[in-house]
This record gives sequence, C-alpha cells and structure tokens, in this order.
Amino acid sequence: VITSDLGDESALSPTERSTVRRHPDRAQADRRALDAVLDSGLLAHVGFVDESGQPFVIPVAYARDGDRLLVHGSTGSRLLRHLATGAPACVTVTHIDGVVVARSAFNSSMNYRSALVFGSFRRLEGDDAAAAVDVITDHLIPGRVSEVRANTKKELAATMVLALDLSEASVKVRAGGPSDEPEDLEAPVWAGVVPTRLTASTAEPGDSRAALLPIPESVRTLIAKLS
Amino acid sequence: VITSDLGDESALSPTERSTVRRHPDRAQADRRALDAVLDSGLLAHVGFVDESGQPFVIPVAYARDGDRLLVHGSTGSRLLRHLATGAPACVTVTHIDGVVVARSAFNSSMNYRSALVFGSFRRLEGDDAAAAVDVITDHLIPGRVSEVRANTKKELAATMVLALDLSEASVKVRAGGPSDEPEDLEAPVWAGVVPTRLTASTAEPGDSRAALLPIPESVRTLIAKLS
Repeated sequence: VITSDLGDESALSPTERSTVRRHPDRAQADRRALDAVLDSGLLAHVGFVDESGQPFVIPVAYARDGDRLLVHGSTGSRLLRHLATGAPACVTVTHIDGVVVARSAFNSSMNYRSALVFGSFRRLEGDDAAAAVDVITDHLIPGRVSEVRANTKKELAATMVLALDLSEASVKVRAGGPSDEPEDLEAPVWAGVVPTRLTASTAEPGDSRAALLPIPESVRTLIAKLS
Repeated sequence: VITSDLGDESALSPTERSTVRRHPDRAQADRRALDAVLDSGLLAHVGFVDESGQPFVIPVAYARDGDRLLVHGSTGSRLLRHLATGAPACVTVTHIDGVVVARSAFNSSMNYRSALVFGSFRRLEGDDAAAAVDVITDHLIPGRVSEVRANTKKELAATMVLALDLSEASVKVRAGGPSDEPEDLEAPVWAGVVPTRLTASTAEPGDSRAALLPIPESVRTLIAKLS
C-alpha cells in the first residue's frame, strides 16, 4: 500500500519500526516527501529512553543536512549526552495543516504531515561540527550565518553537535476534507476544513540599538517563509 | 530555582524525571502554567518504548479533562494498545512562540512553551469513555459536540480512550528577546524576535452541500482562537 514515485535508491527503508500500520494509505515512502517535511519545520520532538525504561520527548531545534538530521546544544545537556552514547532515538517533526470538521464527531480529524526518523545519533567533531552548527542556524534563520560574526572556539567547545542518518524513516500525511458516513451526508450540518499553519508577520527589535537598523535579509526571508 | 506562584497543592511534583535541568530558570512549577500549555494546543507528541527498547514519538490529538490528559483512537491502534498496558509514557505539548534572532549565531534561539507529562495511561470504559470522547472533540472544535449527532454505540466500540493523570509534569518556557554577549552589543547587527503562532483564518466547505450552509459557531470559535 506504501507508494513511491521515485526509484528504489530514494525510497525510505520499510523496516519493522518504520512501517506505518494505522492508515497505511497515509504513508509516503520517498525521500522527497521526507525532506519536504523536515525542511519546512522549525522544531522536532526527540524521543529517548532513560536507564529505567522511561521515555522522554523533548522539543529541539534541528536541521536537515543532506542525508542526515542535525541537533545541537550545550555540552552539559543531559539529552545530548544521552543521545551521544548512540542510544536508540526517534525524531518526529509534525506540521499541523488543518482541523477537519466532519458531520459527525467520530469522523472529525486533523490534517497533518509528520516524519519519524529512527536510529542512533553520533557526535560530530572539529570542522564537521562547526559547519553543522552553521547549517542549523541557517535552517532556523535563513542566511543568518553570513550576517553575523563566526562562532568562537569557546562557543564551539561549549556546543555538542549530533547527527542522525536519514536511512530509516516514515512519513505520514493526512490532507483533504472530511470522510463522512453516507448516512450523515443528508444532515443539514456544515463540514469542511479549517486550514492551519505556523505563521509570522513581524520582526520586533530587541532593543533601541536594533530599532535603528533595517530588518536584515535573513529575518525578512524567515517572515516570508512563514507568511 | 523552580518557582511557583501558587500554593503547594497546585505545584507540579518535582520528581527525578520531571525536574528541568537545562535552564532551570525556564521551569514553571504550577498547575496553571501546565493547564495553559495543554489547553491551547491541538496536538501532542506521545513517547513510548517498544519491547526492543526502541522509542517512538507519535503525534496525537488530545485534550485536558480536569486533572487528566485524554487521548483516543481506533481499538486497532498499536500505539493505543501499547499505552493501554500501562507502559511508561511521556506526553509533550509544545508551542513555537518565536524565533530569537541574536547578534551572534550562538545566542540565537527559539521562544516556546512546552509541557512534559509523565506516567502511565489507563483505559476508560463505558460512560466515562463516551464522555471523554466528547471532551476531545470539543477541545479540537469548541462546542462541536452540541452541533452533531451523538456517537453511535458502534463508533464508541471502535474507539479506545485512554487517560493519564497530570500528577507528574514539567513546564518550560522561553520568552523575550535575545541574550547577547556584552561585546556583541556594539556591532551594527539587528537583533530581536520574530513571533510565531499557529493560525487559521478561513473555513473551507468540504462539498457543495456544506457550501450552502452558514459556518457553524464551533468553527467560528476555532478560527477566533487561532486568529
């Protein structure tokens, strides 16, 4: 039931853990679909398991860098230190695209696009880590790296950067209107979709110095992306 | 460092797993803060661990119902069947409130509000389950339950409803502008915040029958909430 419109080399691996079981019709199996979900998100939810078997789900900034997903943070972060050991992880990025209002409560739903990436992170070092930090910054604020000073050695030393291969993932999408029961169609009840999206419309200067400066290109690009 | 502006009875339990370690200044410890994050969200990310120790992070609709968090879905759902066994879970709701643009890449950040709830779900049955389904529907589309027919016995039989007590949770909030290094303040570089939010502005009828009907109160309330 899982379909791919690209060749085998770009298909996502259909392993046990990455196989979509509920609504397999909503599964997408190609790298283009995965990249689209990852590239348009700002925040991922990273899942890991502690020593006692307790799962944790933590929101993090991230970026896709070719065939890998990057996260970063303080070298003191418990999350990053745990992930750096190669512990099994699941990274989920979800876009809420709409509320689906059906003629029955039962058929009400949400439109969304979600990507789950499975695997183990590895720590990046040296130039690879420094370049990865820039990729994450430019993912969050497109082009910002060229507008600000380079990260210092001290800042880089305080930053842990981790990468996860995009070799095992699943993408699930629900789009379109409600699926009503045939017997509900006659009822004089409105049904449809309320599209939702994460938006931005303004840039607020942080202080009086910034208020005197023009809004930089990176920030204008970010706002355009979220308009 | 964790502060509460309410009495002890409303404080969140500061257990090992719910203690905020990174940026404890961003931790909030009262039920009002937790309820505010949960009540204004549409989607949660549920974390669980399979038999092999692999974590999964799955997006789900949810609702807060007093002192418990509700999720529901098909009785055939692997996620719900696993959670119904009482397996340890972590439910995270995150709002992306803005992109923080600092004068250095290093100090760039995101504004957010996130809630993590820890514990084990239990399955609801009978009238409790039926009422809980209505709470979830009205959380997603405020007031919708009174506009549509009741769920049928068959629909309820096909639905599994689970509840998680809000007894162990943490709330973390980052708000405000960038925290620049003193030495970066002199640079002619803009800094500030790009506020973000999940928005909705229109309701799209699902078919020609719906197009002839007025937008219902529930949908207008939803759009107003997301405007």
